[in-house]
Amino acid sequence: MHKLIKGLIQKNNTKIILVVLDGLGGLPLNGKTEIESAKTPNLDVIAQASACGLHVPVSMGITPGSGPGHLSLFGYDPIEHQIGRGILEALGLGMEVRKTDIAIRCNYATLENDIVIDRRAGRIPTEQSRKLTEKLQSNISKIDEAEILFAPGMEHRFAVIFRFPEPLTQDASNINDTDPQKVGKQPVKAVPGSKSAEQVARVAEKFISTTSEILKDQEKANYTLLRGFSVMPHLPSFSELYGLNAIAIANYPMYRGIAKLVGMHAPDVTGDVNDEIVFLKKNYENYDFFFFHVKKIDSYGEDGNFNEKAKRIEEFDLLLPQILELNPDVIIITGDHSTPSLLKNHSWHPVPVLLKSNYVLGGLCKAFSERECIKGELGIFLTINILPLALANSGRLKKFGA
Amino acid sequence: MHKLIKGLIQKNNTKIILVVLDGLGGLPLNGKTEIESAKTPNLDVIAQASACGLHVPVSMGITPGSGPGHLSLFGYDPIEHQIGRGILEALGLGMEVRKTDIAIRCNYATLENDIVIDRRAGRIPTEQSRKLTEKLQSNISKIDEAEILFAPGMEHRFAVIFRFPEPLTQDASNINDTDPQKVGKQPVKAVPGSKSAEQVARVAEKFISTTSEILKDQEKANYTLLRGFSVMPHLPSFSELYGLNAIAIANYPMYRGIAKLVGMHAPDVTGDVNDEIVFLKKNYENYDFFFFHVKKIDSYGEDGNFNEKAKRIEEFDLLLPQILELNPDVIIITGDHSTPSLLKNHSWHPVPVLLKSNYVLGGLCKAFSERECIKGELGIFLTINILPLALANSGRLKKFGA
Repeated sequence: MHKLIKGLIQKNNTKIILVVLDGLGGLPLNGKTEIESAKTPNLDVIAQASACGLHVPVSMGITPGSGPGHLSLFGYDPIEHQIGRGILEALGLGMEVRKTDIAIRCNYATLENDIVIDRRAGRIPTEQSRKLTEKLQSNISKIDEAEILFAPGMEHRFAVIFRFPEPLTQDASNINDTDPQKVGKQPVKAVPGSKSAEQVARVAEKFISTTSEILKDQEKANYTLLRGFSVMPHLPSFSELYGLNAIAIANYPMYRGIAKLVGMHAPDVTGDVNDEIVFLKKNYENYDFFFFHVKKIDSYGEDGNFNEKAKRIEEFDLLLPQILELNPDVIIITGDHSTPSLLKNHSWHPVPVLLKSNYVLGGLCKAFSERECIKGELGIFLTINILPLALANSGRLKKFGA
Repeated sequence: MHKLIKGLIQKNNTKIILVVLDGLGGLPLNGKTEIESAKTPNLDVIAQASACGLHVPVSMGITPGSGPGHLSLFGYDPIEHQIGRGILEALGLGMEVRKTDIAIRCNYATLENDIVIDRRAGRIPTEQSRKLTEKLQSNISKIDEAEILFAPGMEHRFAVIFRFPEPLTQDASNINDTDPQKVGKQPVKAVPGSKSAEQVARVAEKFISTTSEILKDQEKANYTLLRGFSVMPHLPSFSELYGLNAIAIANYPMYRGIAKLVGMHAPDVTGDVNDEIVFLKKNYENYDFFFFHVKKIDSYGEDGNFNEKAKRIEEFDLLLPQILELNPDVIIITGDHSTPSLLKNHSWHPVPVLLKSNYVLGGLCKAFSERECIKGELGIFLTINILPLALANSGRLKKFGA
């Protein structure tokens, strides 16, 4: 599909805005879903004049994580292109990842007589964890040829990057977790599963012994467990594939990080959705594709807070006219996956989407919701088709074949 | 897809019931299809609160046999995994098939001067055919190293299994039909198409000569034609793929046989749908997946009997509350293919399906029928997605990616 699209690309001066309302889709409580409960006059009006549908991020029944959810929105097959756990953790903690890097999720743990007695070091407080991680960073900057970079996380969690001098192959991260998964067992040795993973495993073993030495007087957090060794996935870039100069506008580091993996520009944005809109306006002239991410809708879905999730949708609806004023050639409003409050989790349910351009049928949906979008002209389809539709609607795809 | 699903499985104590109303889908007579004509208050109420849609067993326009129809319902790609004709015939006649077996569909035929003058031996009466088959069995129990097992069928048909001492490879059945397809021709020799088929072809040739010798005084059925040589397909089992402990409740041997191919428990069930429900209740505690098969709807469709097909649907509707009383976490009601009375045959038309769980939108369909299900939240989709949806709705699939 990428090869097909790439061969049809023609550049122009159009603007495409992809608004991702994270975790948008939901399930009914007393008969109405979160979107159906929210007052969304602006979304409803635009839905009436848009191509609407429901999209399936990975495959029917499969619940996507944030990585697969976004990759498919960006037009990448989420099964073919998987983002390693370590990479996602590092991105989420705001680390920059490079082709020379191995990223690892780490836990502080409690070891007694060489046996793991607590895999999470009693879930030590975040503040204490942060201090320990800073201490480790100040003591460890290099192991063998690898630069060592730490990022503190919540409670017992942190991330580490081993930065090597040369780019790594994909199988350089072929190393098992050192977490024994159960207490009462010895930590597992980091064993390389391929030739290119050997140097990484050596650094990992030295990392574990060095950190243990530094942490040895800690009551609980006296050991480190390493999981999800991963390298940066090789993803052809947005500009290479689609000829798009793209920017991510996202106030959470993980989403900027995923955007960077596909070659988007992703400067730091702080503040709330209002601030994101200011940022969008300020950068509007300089890019042709805008990935605009709204996080809180998902957060409240994950908390199981139906009303707050609905309120965040209403809040976005109030701000929407400011985005529409920019008059983009194509605007797509959707989510990366569903997060029904009922499930307090991501889910497999298809996600409502609207696409507005000058070249849609429209007139099929009365409002923007799961049950209205199903009546729309896009039907139920794989998420990976959204990007080609955006390109088509912006006049950026030539005819295929004569 | 199997690899993806297998990696996401998490076990729990939920129950899934898959009701297969064989040949359910139909076409209109005087404006209404069989389901639309039937009074189905229970199905209609449950459809209103379910995820509904239409599923396509193989591909648009492709009419599935019972093998592909069921395999796709069980989540197996019906093009990748094909059940040989001989295997299906043997299963339909209640034979057990093993990895050591070659299964063959056989016809009694009439040979005169080494020329086939009737490929069906004048469609001799079933009773006469049964006696001949018993006679063959009592005279032939072994040829070379293969045990020979017969099963009588309707009219001129019967099935044979060559049971070898060791498991066979898939290409051991690479042998042409000995049926010349036209009268006035000589029977075709059984020629092995691969090395591993050589021993099988030898047994086949001896089988033909031995049976001919025994049948030589018969007026019509004096020869045997062998077709559809096949070995048991290799199918990963339900428990291996999905972690499900599954049982088939089916009063026709072929459906129990197909279920056994995917590793379901499939004890003999006799009687009608009432008896199947008694059996379901009796076994409800011991399994987590129930394949519940209702045959007669298809049978009347194949007879072209619109009214009787509709009546059988009504009959099931009356019994449905007894199944619902079990309160399964997920219930799916559908067919394995359409069998419009108008066509007197299986057809390519998508099949209505409803899926009820605590995690559906619902509220989109007024009744259970082809034309109502099309408005549902599942849209039109490939049958192979039903099993992943069942797993998702029962909380048996973890999130894909972080």
